[in-house]
Amino acid sequence: MVRYQPAKLDRTFSALADATRRAILLRLSETPELTVSELAKPFPVSLPNIMKHIGVLADAGLLTRDKTGRSVRCRLSAAPLEEATQWLHRYEKFWTERLDALGH
Amino acid sequence: MVRYQPAKLDRTFSALADATRRAILLRLSETPELTVSELAKPFPVSLPNIMKHIGVLADAGLLTRDKTGRSVRCRLSAAPLEEATQWLHRYEKFWTERLDALGH
Repeated sequence: MVRYQPAKLDRTFSALADATRRAILLRLSETPELTVSELAKPFPVSLPNIMKHIGVLADAGLLTRDKTGRSVRCRLSAAPLEEATQWLHRYEKFWTERLDALGH
Repeated sequence: MVRYQPAKLDRTFSALADATRRAILLRLSETPELTVSELAKPFPVSLPNIMKHIGVLADAGLLTRDKTGRSVRCRLSAAPLEEATQWLHRYEKFWTERLDALGH
């Protein structure tokens, strides 16, 4: 029988499978805290659309939302990215071996 | 304006967002070459279902299929995993900083 890995990784990889969501994470990696409207500004999509993406990222634990009055501030939450990286590291030898073979 | 990253990463992360597909890659990392039926054996799902997952992985460039007669042999193709890891490495400082802070 095959051991299944936790559904958490499903949510993480699924959340990362969208260029707008990756771009939101990238902005939060450059600016530690942004309101939803600040986050939405540079994107050529509607505010409800961005809020949906922010919801997906929050559900995956990739960002935290902090509500003060009418403004919601978002921050990057990197723990799921670390788990995804750990999963990927298992395969690292496959591309390093390939590069080694190309080098010879 | 926000720079978008290539749709290739969408396909890679989307393919990885499923425990059965990750388990298929894991098996191919342990055994370099497996036929579709060998791959399907340990999974508690139907052969057509596994073939669908193999198709998604192949479309994402994560495995290659080689048909000889009636048997199709599958191999891991690690290049997209390397690209995904490179994307994630940008965020590495966020969890190392967090761990450093916990250490103090």
